[in-house]
Amino acid sequence: MRPVISLTTDFGTTDHFVGTMKGVIAKICADANVIDITHDIPAYNVLEGALAIWPAWRYFPALTIHVLVVDPGVGSERRPILARIGGHYFIAPDNGVLTFLLDDIERTGPPPDLHELTTPAYRLGTQSVTFHGRDVFAPAAAHLANQLACGNADLSSFGPRIKDPVRLKLEKPTRGPDGVVTGTILKVDRFGNLLTNLQAADVADLQDQRFALNLESNTITRLLKNYMAGKPGEPFAIFGSSCVLEIALNRGNAAKQLGASPGDTFTLTSDA
Amino acid sequence: MRPVISLTTDFGTTDHFVGTMKGVIAKICADANVIDITHDIPAYNVLEGALAIWPAWRYFPALTIHVLVVDPGVGSERRPILARIGGHYFIAPDNGVLTFLLDDIERTGPPPDLHELTTPAYRLGTQSVTFHGRDVFAPAAAHLANQLACGNADLSSFGPRIKDPVRLKLEKPTRGPDGVVTGTILKVDRFGNLLTNLQAADVADLQDQRFALNLESNTITRLLKNYMAGKPGEPFAIFGSSCVLEIALNRGNAAKQLGASPGDTFTLTSDA
Amino acid sequence: MRPVISLTTDFGTTDHFVGTMKGVIAKICADANVIDITHDIPAYNVLEGALAIWPAWRYFPALTIHVLVVDPGVGSERRPILARIGGHYFIAPDNGVLTFLLDDIERTGPPPDLHELTTPAYRLGTQSVTFHGRDVFAPAAAHLANQLACGNADLSSFGPRIKDPVRLKLEKPTRGPDGVVTGTILKVDRFGNLLTNLQAADVADLQDQRFALNLESNTITRLLKNYMAGKPGEPFAIFGSSCVLEIALNRGNAAKQLGASPGDTFTLTSDA
Repeated sequence: MRPVISLTTDFGTTDHFVGTMKGVIAKICADANVIDITHDIPAYNVLEGALAIWPAWRYFPALTIHVLVVDPGVGSERRPILARIGGHYFIAPDNGVLTFLLDDIERTGPPPDLHELTTPAYRLGTQSVTFHGRDVFAPAAAHLANQLACGNADLSSFGPRIKDPVRLKLEKPTRGPDGVVTGTILKVDRFGNLLTNLQAADVADLQDQRFALNLESNTITRLLKNYMAGKPGEPFAIFGSSCVLEIALNRGNAAKQLGASPGDTFTLTSDA
Repeated sequence: MRPVISLTTDFGTTDHFVGTMKGVIAKICADANVIDITHDIPAYNVLEGALAIWPAWRYFPALTIHVLVVDPGVGSERRPILARIGGHYFIAPDNGVLTFLLDDIERTGPPPDLHELTTPAYRLGTQSVTFHGRDVFAPAAAHLANQLACGNADLSSFGPRIKDPVRLKLEKPTRGPDGVVTGTILKVDRFGNLLTNLQAADVADLQDQRFALNLESNTITRLLKNYMAGKPGEPFAIFGSSCVLEIALNRGNAAKQLGASPGDTFTLTSDA
Repeated sequence: MRPVISLTTDFGTTDHFVGTMKGVIAKICADANVIDITHDIPAYNVLEGALAIWPAWRYFPALTIHVLVVDPGVGSERRPILARIGGHYFIAPDNGVLTFLLDDIERTGPPPDLHELTTPAYRLGTQSVTFHGRDVFAPAAAHLANQLACGNADLSSFGPRIKDPVRLKLEKPTRGPDGVVTGTILKVDRFGNLLTNLQAADVADLQDQRFALNLESNTITRLLKNYMAGKPGEPFAIFGSSCVLEIALNRGNAAKQLGASPGDTFTLTSDA
């Protein structure tokens, strides 16, 4: 089999950082298929890193190794970790970037197998304290890829098992005594769609109801199934491809039109 | 043979979209060589998508599969299509993104073989109505890549033949009774070069003539063969690598200096 | 072996340029592993191109072919060259983009083997005078990759040996009679770190000394080993992953906070 490694970082693409990581991988595992998810996570924004890998990983082949480097704590005591979750592998700093995956797997799967990356042979020899993407995470991914190509992956060879991965303290949606849900905008995507912290389970019966979603001075009353169904200039709610309820605009930029940005809150009132 | 798949989209690179498409491809056809053309087509801008693939595709290996996803109509009735043109394959929404290719081939080659993508087995099982790049176009490309790798590509296995692909209504250059040509700026490239809608055939004998190209208050009178031949600060005309006449500036940004942008018109007067 | 080709250009990623180069490579050498270092070198900025490849190349596999296209002189008399340096290959316009590599190798290794790219068979047949990335540099890299895959690389087959590669005239740090060093900011990276023209050898014993680095109205007195060690809002000096002394800020943007940009100078006073 040809091992697949995905990369998600906040390194941007204007410097040499990502290319250097790929050079390190090619040197250790020439046959790896390295796929960029994104390198444009806002600098140090662990939450956006967590939101990028979450809707993506299931679409990759089984046994894909997903490398996540949004790592404001590089060089400090934070642990580098390797996790096996849902038949895939995740290599990342232990800073919460796996939060959504861990939450999901607790509800649905066997407990994840988590290890700290401590084995010196799986790091570069002359490692820096500023660029663990190159010196720790890329080599670990490439060595695991080699193990997978040989059919003998052994997570314990990377370091000791751990049980207490760091998780992000997320703003969870709240439901008041009057049934009104308060949610938060987590992220704006490329098209200006507003990704909220409401998952399908939080608003299970929205589709069959009348509802009013209030964001700033805007009231949204329709849940649509595709972007084209929106009237020109009309913001609407939609379950998009990002695992969460989105607020969107047909061929427009909802974030700009509504003047909304990450951290803003909204209320959702159902008439059920 | 190792199948080649090129990707041109308006998905940007800040979200997971492109990475997820590549994950889907790797899952279906592990050996595909996936090459990005660009993902920075302005959102929903079908014309710029058409302009990106046009000068690029001939430089790829024969049988390359070019995937084009600039798809404002995702989830609506617009058809997803597969075309065989000039010995290459093109997978795209039927919204005009293939216009330049279809125009070219009508002049020079056998009629293109066009099919609607309807075969359920060549889509993802649980397809969304918001992300056909992932659910329809990427799987179709990967299944076609598998067919090509086995030497048995069968376009009719993807869906019924169609004969009426959508084309963009393009601003064509016009020639007045006085011989003055009116053209339009189609696009500004990375270096600030202004790409026009004049092709070599429209201005065949420009090279041997005196001419005056008037754009806003600027008059351009020289057709150069390379950018370095331009004097500092002097805008000039050139046939660049984009199949069309460009207005450019040596080591400068013509768009900024001339204050020009897509949609602007200019006149071209020849003294022949 | 699977040949590796790295790409560093100022082509950006909004146009078809880079994708077209990769199509050309795939057509000539289907098996090449093509890795982007960056395509976001500021247009025509040869110095930034030189700074991008410098800290990256050593992390790639031996025999990697590094293609560098920051080429304001395309179409003029400037030579396209191929160099063998430190067991890797470099293909670039002869405009100084290899300056740091050549300087390093003169101190430490055997003299580089340099050739002008003149062999017509290793260019595209119908070459333009505006896009040598596609017509000259990509084909040369792919043909060399084929030679390497067959174990018979022959640089002289690409053109005649040359001995006088162009070098950038760099601002070198100066040391005054009072021992005060004056340095220059070369570049700002993605995180806002300021890369200087001071290398470790220029300030060998900084670590054991008290020192004062004065940049605008800021005085920096600490050399740290990792970014996390910086106090909030405190700029500090660090040897990062870019081969030079950097001025940085923990989780902040030093360039913005200090109002500094490339070309600015600073002084460094030691108390040794």
